[in-house]
Amino acid sequence: MQADRVWTNARLATMVASEAGGALGVVETGMIACRDGRIVHAGPAMAIEAAEAIDCAGRWVTPGLIDCHTHLVHGGDRAHEFELRLAGASYEEIARSGGGIVSTMAATRAAGRDGLVAQALPRLDALIAEGLTTIEIKSGYGLSLDAELDMLHAARALGRERDVRVVTSFLGAHALPPEFAGDADGYIDHIADEMIPAIAAQGLADAVDGFCETIGFTPAQIGRVFEAARDHDLPVKLHAEQLSNSHGAALAAEYGALSADHLEHLDEAGITAMARAGTVAVLLPGAYYFTRETRLPPIAALRAAGVPMAIATDCNPGTSPMTSLLLAMNMAATLFRLTVDECLAGVTREAARALGLQAEIGTLEPGKSCDLAIWDIGRPAELVYRMGANPLHDRVRKGE
Amino acid sequence: MQADRVWTNARLATMVASEAGGALGVVETGMIACRDGRIVHAGPAMAIEAAEAIDCAGRWVTPGLIDCHTHLVHGGDRAHEFELRLAGASYEEIARSGGGIVSTMAATRAAGRDGLVAQALPRLDALIAEGLTTIEIKSGYGLSLDAELDMLHAARALGRERDVRVVTSFLGAHALPPEFAGDADGYIDHIADEMIPAIAAQGLADAVDGFCETIGFTPAQIGRVFEAARDHDLPVKLHAEQLSNSHGAALAAEYGALSADHLEHLDEAGITAMARAGTVAVLLPGAYYFTRETRLPPIAALRAAGVPMAIATDCNPGTSPMTSLLLAMNMAATLFRLTVDECLAGVTREAARALGLQAEIGTLEPGKSCDLAIWDIGRPAELVYRMGANPLHDRVRKGE
Ligand SMILES: [Zn+2]
Ligand SMILES: [Zn+2]
Repeated sequence: MQADRVWTNARLATMVASEAGGALGVVETGMIACRDGRIVHAGPAMAIEAAEAIDCAGRWVTPGLIDCHTHLVHGGDRAHEFELRLAGASYEEIARSGGGIVSTMAATRAAGRDGLVAQALPRLDALIAEGLTTIEIKSGYGLSLDAELDMLHAARALGRERDVRVVTSFLGAHALPPEFAGDADGYIDHIADEMIPAIAAQGLADAVDGFCETIGFTPAQIGRVFEAARDHDLPVKLHAEQLSNSHGAALAAEYGALSADHLEHLDEAGITAMARAGTVAVLLPGAYYFTRETRLPPIAALRAAGVPMAIATDCNPGTSPMTSLLLAMNMAATLFRLTVDECLAGVTREAARALGLQAEIGTLEPGKSCDLAIWDIGRPAELVYRMGANPLHDRVRKGE
Repeated sequence: MQADRVWTNARLATMVASEAGGALGVVETGMIACRDGRIVHAGPAMAIEAAEAIDCAGRWVTPGLIDCHTHLVHGGDRAHEFELRLAGASYEEIARSGGGIVSTMAATRAAGRDGLVAQALPRLDALIAEGLTTIEIKSGYGLSLDAELDMLHAARALGRERDVRVVTSFLGAHALPPEFAGDADGYIDHIADEMIPAIAAQGLADAVDGFCETIGFTPAQIGRVFEAARDHDLPVKLHAEQLSNSHGAALAAEYGALSADHLEHLDEAGITAMARAGTVAVLLPGAYYFTRETRLPPIAALRAAGVPMAIATDCNPGTSPMTSLLLAMNMAATLFRLTVDECLAGVTREAARALGLQAEIGTLEPGKSCDLAIWDIGRPAELVYRMGANPLHDRVRKGE
């Protein structure tokens, strides 16, 4: 076998379960070889000719981390709203001071494409500094065709500004823009008839997302959006069962959704539907924590039903201003009681599945993109256990 | 006025409340001047001759951050115990696998002085990277005179390895070492008669701490320790009311303690005693979060009584493996509902008070050590609001 580069003397968490390596697919005396940006070997040390050899000195290597649910691109922040709320301001006072999603919409529309990129870069850099190699980024704060296009263009631009894979989701059905006040169905028509066709024509969205909630859109409205997505061959996903049970997860599963996300109020029927459809449960403990939610997603039932579970930051200004997947894992363990193995799979293998990219990334296997995170740790559990540490030694994208 | 160095074009949060600047003592067009490592001016821009001028370009400047309660020096970690617990292991299984404080004691004793320094440095560096300039470090995992001396020497050595002020606390009364099994009073005698005199003679401890708890030591035993501290002119502090109400805070206040820490089960009498003695309430939201505690410290009552509140990481392997004061602030706000102003004071002005160093550090005032954190933020609330971001632009210690 010939390779461009090998990483030797590594301890691998391949994330491919095996009898010898357990759920993490551990290889204690491991080696990774890369050719043309792809893994050609990930397993026990063997003789491989390579132009370059990197000695990992016994360090742990995992797949590059994947954040499969973010609103990374947005204008402004909501720090002042956070401050006012802690100081005891009423909902009205906060609204008067320009709080809420409307303030983010206004700041997003005002930022322009370049402004959105500039504002998102520090957030992206924080994630990259922890070994992230793939990120999903949603639109949904523009809420007009032009502003949504700006957000999606900005997301794509981030993938050129940094060496990172960006996967985009069009989230027009996030909130009702003031232009359509009192006419949610009219806005949904606009999404289905104008926005999705235009965005699909430009290839700007890799998936279509929505917010199915009493304060968002009804299952019937989301169904309209999903039909339009299907007409344009775009996979779907959904913010579902965050604040109440609208049966969004079952609806999403009906459309073969990649994922249903949040899920604090998910019921047994939704779990069954997700399991049958192979829809990934994307857990967002940062939002649970930041909003002081007390209702836990039904982790044990999801586990029992064999629904794959991913973990993401939900990075957004209103309910999860978080730019650390390591912290998201700690919260998933501490607050949701996911095991260490589930946490690590949740930001690698299952996060890849939530993006429909399980053939391309998320594990250390021949044929996949050589996206690696190399860690200064004694055991993988440390990545979940610590709070505020960043033991990343090096990050590799497409073998570089 | 003549200075070695000035920082111009700065927005200051001096942390000295004022009519114009509010609780944070904000100066919008501010300037700091330093001579011989001390602040000679912190306020509105003025004409000052200086050898060097640094343009802050409108960035915010706060006092350097202070972590006033850590167990930063320790051997090993408890990541495997964390992993086993999440996987459903019983208490016995964890004990059999070598978990608990005994495992930390064994790893600490085995590490040796240099090993303790080497293991603590990455943790210290994580804190420093967020603008920390002063840290308190406790002993308490050695639990023999030699091993406690090693811990305190290691803590002092950290202050030479890095440009940071280290304040030490002797915490012999942390847990009962196996050598004294069944004889807590005998161990307390050993602390009072042997350990404190020896440590005081070497000047290795700046204060004496204890763990007053049903699973720790009784108020009577802690009183013995405090008497010995008093005999050697060492101020005291106490881990109090974390798991139950042992009336430790009132006891500590009686001895004029610098701080009482944790306080989830603090009662009204304890609050009154603390207020009267000027004892600082050190809140440790990382431990509250990590141990999934549900009982909140009595924040509103502390606030009403005028008890100063500080915030610290409690960095320790068993109940708070945290190395981020920014995250500790976010948890204090999110979980304990401290205001942004209280959070910022908690890691600066009040943390200084908790160490008895309020004349030296903790605010931007003439005469104090020129310890600064310079931030890439739009408003101070961002330091509390974000999770996993580190907007530090620069850190200054003694004017350098
Ligand atoms: Zn979301
Ligand atoms: Zn402690």
